[in-house]
Amino acid sequence: MGKPISFTETVKIPGALGRAGIIHTPHGDIETPAYVTVGTKATVKSLTPEQVKSVGAQVVLANTYHLYLEPGDEVVKGAGGLHDFMNWHGPTITDSGGFQVFSLGEAYGKGVSKVATGEALTEAGETEILEKTKSLAKIDEEGVTFISHKDGTKHRMTPEDSMRIQHNIGADIMFAFDECTSPHAKKEYQKEAMDRTHRWAERCVAYHTESGQNATQGLFAVVQGGRFEDLRKESARILSEMDFAGFGVGGSFVKEDMDTAVGWVNEILPDDKPRHLLGIGEPLDILKGVEQGCDTFDCVAATRMARNGGIYVTGGKINITNAQYKKDFDPIMEGCDCYTCTHYTRAYVAHLFRAKEMLAATLASIHNLRFIIRFTDEIREAIKAGKFAEHKQNVLKTYAQG
Amino acid sequence: MGKPISFTETVKIPGALGRAGIIHTPHGDIETPAYVTVGTKATVKSLTPEQVKSVGAQVVLANTYHLYLEPGDEVVKGAGGLHDFMNWHGPTITDSGGFQVFSLGEAYGKGVSKVATGEALTEAGETEILEKTKSLAKIDEEGVTFISHKDGTKHRMTPEDSMRIQHNIGADIMFAFDECTSPHAKKEYQKEAMDRTHRWAERCVAYHTESGQNATQGLFAVVQGGRFEDLRKESARILSEMDFAGFGVGGSFVKEDMDTAVGWVNEILPDDKPRHLLGIGEPLDILKGVEQGCDTFDCVAATRMARNGGIYVTGGKINITNAQYKKDFDPIMEGCDCYTCTHYTRAYVAHLFRAKEMLAATLASIHNLRFIIRFTDEIREAIKAGKFAEHKQNVLKTYAQG
Repeated sequence: MGKPISFTETVKIPGALGRAGIIHTPHGDIETPAYVTVGTKATVKSLTPEQVKSVGAQVVLANTYHLYLEPGDEVVKGAGGLHDFMNWHGPTITDSGGFQVFSLGEAYGKGVSKVATGEALTEAGETEILEKTKSLAKIDEEGVTFISHKDGTKHRMTPEDSMRIQHNIGADIMFAFDECTSPHAKKEYQKEAMDRTHRWAERCVAYHTESGQNATQGLFAVVQGGRFEDLRKESARILSEMDFAGFGVGGSFVKEDMDTAVGWVNEILPDDKPRHLLGIGEPLDILKGVEQGCDTFDCVAATRMARNGGIYVTGGKINITNAQYKKDFDPIMEGCDCYTCTHYTRAYVAHLFRAKEMLAATLASIHNLRFIIRFTDEIREAIKAGKFAEHKQNVLKTYAQG
Repeated sequence: MGKPISFTETVKIPGALGRAGIIHTPHGDIETPAYVTVGTKATVKSLTPEQVKSVGAQVVLANTYHLYLEPGDEVVKGAGGLHDFMNWHGPTITDSGGFQVFSLGEAYGKGVSKVATGEALTEAGETEILEKTKSLAKIDEEGVTFISHKDGTKHRMTPEDSMRIQHNIGADIMFAFDECTSPHAKKEYQKEAMDRTHRWAERCVAYHTESGQNATQGLFAVVQGGRFEDLRKESARILSEMDFAGFGVGGSFVKEDMDTAVGWVNEILPDDKPRHLLGIGEPLDILKGVEQGCDTFDCVAATRMARNGGIYVTGGKINITNAQYKKDFDPIMEGCDCYTCTHYTRAYVAHLFRAKEMLAATLASIHNLRFIIRFTDEIREAIKAGKFAEHKQNVLKTYAQG
């Protein structure tokens, strides 16, 4: 029986961990390094799948936590799985749900959620969670109990639940359920969470294998260990020995970790499997992440920024809602080949934002996605041409001037 | 010098005022009867122009009042006019601004506007308007003074201003500035407003001709007269004698008027010029309007409904956010050829609405526009095939069952 996910490394960056390659999936190949477009709730916000394809997107990542809560993974399964449900027939990924369970639980407990804390206190059990942990996610060895950020309802997710949900969703690549810690957590807790993540990883592999879904969906592990070199290396080593199709480097990075933790992990992970950097995707972070050995990157920044008028331009960003663009009849970025830049002016896009028209988000998202995907594609082409070092210097120079 | 707008009547409905025909414009032909898609602020809400084209739209109508306030007609002109500004290169129409000036002014004065009444009272002049008229639109022989529904600022619009603004916007078809009355206004006031509308029509023709813009933009009149047969006929007669390229039947109809006022007017208007029914566009109203002699119809209903989950289906409407559609894996309308119905399930569209995803509005708008445009196209094909009466009976039967 063939594996659903395999990886071919094609060209290495001389003297670095990075490389160009191809991830083979049941829904087509992904040429790496690749930017992974985020479609949180089985839709890339404000875009049709055809528009997503038109910006050069190769692969879409949806969020297990969000789809579990709404519309429910059984509904996605009923529609024939994620590809049919959202009409995206290229490669897909689901994350494990861990990041959202922990971070939204945290946020909720600290009162930054949309649901008022008081509304959740409808059962004794929930009150107990809130009081004991000061957060709405409570971890035990079996799994996590958490309160939905949407409606305050109580839920339970174990590694096996995450697998079952991701099987129902049916993405080509899925992730083992992990405990996602804060990068600021102390070493003792990082170690505890990492060890638990490893035990959960084993349970995910067992469930995934037993289900038979490993014939069509590839399972990736999430390497944890925070900002500690020994923990990161231990995590990479232990997870490398399990039967995973690829790896994610996880754990809410801060910028400085791009130079350290990412490299520590990728030195150890096997070269014949793909390596995904979870939740990172600003231009210079991608450049660094590629050099440090990551193949794929997902991030909501490009589309989230776009919805607020933040536009990528060569060497930086602008906000299109600034008054100076009201009568500016140039494209939003000179020389850009995207649909927005080849058909509209800054004045028009600025008008759409002021008028609160939905097309504003669509046009800005098309541009930003095209920008960041082209940015990543250019790194890949430079690697393939043996010119990564030269390309890196040019990019850094552009951003220093920007 | 050729006229920018001309009309060819091709097939008459036997024994009725209605017909099939072609409106020739500088940006292409419009086969009539035709549904006119509304792009209020130089965008058909939630759709790209390519998506608008894909539903079969032939012509887009933008609103003079809205574009005057935002981004300003000078900005539209600076971008090369409406077609270039919004990237719609087919035929376009602008209304006169009259409907919004009067109706939003009314609404504002009655406290249903988004801007609190108090906020507008920043100048003595504005206070005076509010007190004298109990509305924020004040009419005199020269024109109208009104308060913006957006920000409470004071504006003045005369027939000449409306022409100048519409010249800057640059649509293929523009409308003379009219006083738009309530259908419930008394006859005395209807007569007064109608007479003023005729005097303003003369001023519009004079300004339009003198400007030279009549070489590239066609000017339509708006027939008024409320629900009174003698006034409607008088208005149609007087305006027919002026140099207009076509006519609009105006005045905030109530349903019952479709059988009366529309026919009174179209009996008199010349057959060699196109006749537009302003602001009307529900399926059975279009069927009736065509029979009564109207060639084109604009209405925000299809897209406004869509944004709230209201979906046209054969013989009626459904609301896709109803619980019954959560796990419904059929297309939103069986047999529909639109992009939404051929690519997505009810369950997916329902999910997008629940998740407040922007793609919900896009997919629902595509379906509703395709539905209403196909509905209108089928009437046209029936007329051309000499089968209008038969088609009408079929449609009415479907709606009686629906």
